[in-house]
Amino acid sequence: MDINEALYTTRAMRRVSSDPVPDDIVKAMMDAAIRSPSGGNSQNWRWVTVADRNTIVTIGDLYSDAWAQLNETFYKGKAEQARSSGDKATVRVMNSAQWLADNFAQVPLVVFPYHRNDPSGASIYPAVWSLMLSARSQGIGTCLTTVLGTFKHQEVADLLGVPVEKGWINAAAVTCGYPLGKWGLAKRAPAHLVTYSETWGEPPTWTIDEPLWKPDDR
Amino acid sequence: MDINEALYTTRAMRRVSSDPVPDDIVKAMMDAAIRSPSGGNSQNWRWVTVADRNTIVTIGDLYSDAWAQLNETFYKGKAEQARSSGDKATVRVMNSAQWLADNFAQVPLVVFPYHRNDPSGASIYPAVWSLMLSARSQGIGTCLTTVLGTFKHQEVADLLGVPVEKGWINAAAVTCGYPLGKWGLAKRAPAHLVTYSETWGEPPTWTIDEPLWKPDDR
Repeated sequence: MDINEALYTTRAMRRVSSDPVPDDIVKAMMDAAIRSPSGGNSQNWRWVTVADRNTIVTIGDLYSDAWAQLNETFYKGKAEQARSSGDKATVRVMNSAQWLADNFAQVPLVVFPYHRNDPSGASIYPAVWSLMLSARSQGIGTCLTTVLGTFKHQEVADLLGVPVEKGWINAAAVTCGYPLGKWGLAKRAPAHLVTYSETWGEPPTWTIDEPLWKPDDR
Repeated sequence: MDINEALYTTRAMRRVSSDPVPDDIVKAMMDAAIRSPSGGNSQNWRWVTVADRNTIVTIGDLYSDAWAQLNETFYKGKAEQARSSGDKATVRVMNSAQWLADNFAQVPLVVFPYHRNDPSGASIYPAVWSLMLSARSQGIGTCLTTVLGTFKHQEVADLLGVPVEKGWINAAAVTCGYPLGKWGLAKRAPAHLVTYSETWGEPPTWTIDEPLWKPDDR
């Protein structure tokens, strides 16, 4: 797959089938992930791949709890506000996250990256994103969520046997599976509206009327 | 470029020539960056692209200071220890970072991503990595550094006019330019040594004797 197709179409793909992700694909995802650069080439990461049904059911319960907590706190009123203001994009994200909360038990694979001595996240998230791009290129949809690490860090660590006392911090849970939905370009604010030239607030010399890569370019 | 070539060969490329990075490439890098998913699709990012010679000279001075501070604190003794123990990989990283400190003024482009309401970094760093992968696919070498954000956050904000009082946090400085060195596979601990299956400490069913993608596959 061309790099641009991967970069432009790897969107959060929460709705996946229960078909297992083959070991060869997991292996290729992991091999791609660990190629990314890390601060001082420290590679201070460990990854736990979970496919066991019972474990995933338990993780699903934790995710549902965490998602409910998020809705009662940071996202409070967000879904309703989006619905009443006609903000379809946000409604779609909220519905999709709710689908995951309701159907987590059928997700065939969840990858848990852990890191330490990486306070900004600048080392682990490029590797996580490489894993997701590699998955995309092999037809696997992924979704990165931090709600388990935020609200259920200890519970997940206990479940997976993570020695958190040694400084390991959960960076994410990445759900993986064959997509039920379609790949495609997600809507984004155009780059020239979020990019400044030389100093904050100065627009760049260029504008982008439509995405520079489109599915027709395939 | 194939996705695997980008994922496997985008390494920290600090040594770059002073040749300017064309606007069309900057535009394509930015358009690729903003396609990545962010938490709740919040896209809570702004990017400042700096090519002005005077600004880059000043940033270079700040970088040299920050690099010296890092060597006096977190990295204290690291270079010497690596040299005496024959750890060539670490010596190379340290030499390369020193090169950047000594030659920052000739870097033709530095991109500063800013984010807010993204405490883990899970939203900004995938976008930053997409920028770097897109750059790689267009022949531009990049290096992500967090030392300016760590040691010179206010100085950089003052220089670029960033309204930090509104919550904007510097995620990185990404140096960009045409590489003086060669692209190639960086050495990494094999994936099966850092991946666990189902629970922490359990090896996966697979091993990886050599990288699954190699330059010959091109």
